Amino acid sequence: MDVKGGATGRRGPRGSYAVGDERRTRILDAAVEHFAQWGFHATSLTRIAKEVGITQGGLLHHFRTKEALLVSVLEASDENDAVRFFTEECESVAEWFHRLLDLTAHNAQRPGRTRMFNALVGESGDPDHPAHAFFARRYRTLVEEAGGSLRRGVESGELRGDTDCTAEARQLLAVMDGLQLQWVLAPASVDMVEQLHHYVDRLYRALSTAGRALPPR
Amino acid sequence: MDVKGGATGRRGPRGSYAVGDERRTRILDAAVEHFAQWGFHATSLTRIAKEVGITQGGLLHHFRTKEALLVSVLEASDENDAVRFFTEECESVAEWFHRLLDLTAHNAQRPGRTRMFNALVGESGDPDHPAHAFFARRYRTLVEEAGGSLRRGVESGELRGDTDCTAEARQLLAVMDGLQLQWVLAPASVDMVEQLHHYVDRLYRALSTAGRALPPR
Repeated sequence: MDVKGGATGRRGPRGSYAVGDERRTRILDAAVEHFAQWGFHATSLTRIAKEVGITQGGLLHHFRTKEALLVSVLEASDENDAVRFFTEECESVAEWFHRLLDLTAHNAQRPGRTRMFNALVGESGDPDHPAHAFFARRYRTLVEEAGGSLRRGVESGELRGDTDCTAEARQLLAVMDGLQLQWVLAPASVDMVEQLHHYVDRLYRALSTAGRALPPR
Repeated sequence: MDVKGGATGRRGPRGSYAVGDERRTRILDAAVEHFAQWGFHATSLTRIAKEVGITQGGLLHHFRTKEALLVSVLEASDENDAVRFFTEECESVAEWFHRLLDLTAHNAQRPGRTRMFNALVGESGDPDHPAHAFFARRYRTLVEEAGGSLRRGVESGELRGDTDCTAEARQLLAVMDGLQLQWVLAPASVDMVEQLHHYVDRLYRALSTAGRALPPR
């Protein structure tokens, strides 16, 4: 199956591919703000369409349902982060920690997206929520990937042999998510990057065979 | 001002105080589930009233608005936890860590309340959300209180003098919140208590003057 086959379906009745893609991007951007403020259930496709300046029919041409729009917003967001921060392989756990700090600094620059993430991950705990499967899978994947990064550090001798890679991965994700909750509520008094730096500094001291704080880049 | 003066207003037209209190509790319990599933905006007072078996007028007699119900649910929940786990003063940081583990074990027994917490803290990042002020204040207070518990440990000589009590408090709250997000999505594969135990074990080893893992009770 040609995974790019869907592109034809994204061509608007009067528009070129470029216009369609640009409109699609504007819908996704508007949706971030609406999901952040209203959550999934109270978000209105009509209001998103109005904000983008298209009809609801025009919006449904790009995203057939609110559920589809939700999952597209979340997938696009994760994909952008993956491309931006994790395309190049990390040659050490220290470098991977620095990338997590970069990602956190980036999140602090986009409160809308960060607010949306907090709102949606929170409400998706309901098993009937349309993003429940997405987030359950997301954490399984992230724990695996993060655990893998740590495991490679064990194999290279950078980290101690008794490192519990899965537990460390879970806790690292947890502290990042939890700091985001606090930051969104009080951005002026919570420095997410500083807090995470403090955390990974101690973590690196505890786990690295060198037994010292995270080395600078 | 007599803070108990409001009790008269809680007496139903046909009911005794006891009946009114019992009904109030049933409304709060039902509201936990509704807020957990629907979030604030999409929660319906009519549906909550129906579930409790009263009219919407009967519900409004106890909680004048959806906002009032929301804040009452959150306050009641925090108050119950405070009474249950933190009434007796902790004589050591180690004991305080054990109480946090008790609280986490308790949270794992009440998925509805934990789901509600995740959903509401997430969506309250919106400055216009009716629980925004509640959660912003909640974290200020919790960071102060948790920081205070650690500071007393520094003063007693249990913890090292260079402990950054505020940063540790923030990170401890963050890891607890973040683990709750992961647990709600996959309760069978995330053991919150085990994960937090792992975290406070290392924390205690790093911060205690004894330099060892959390001692058992």
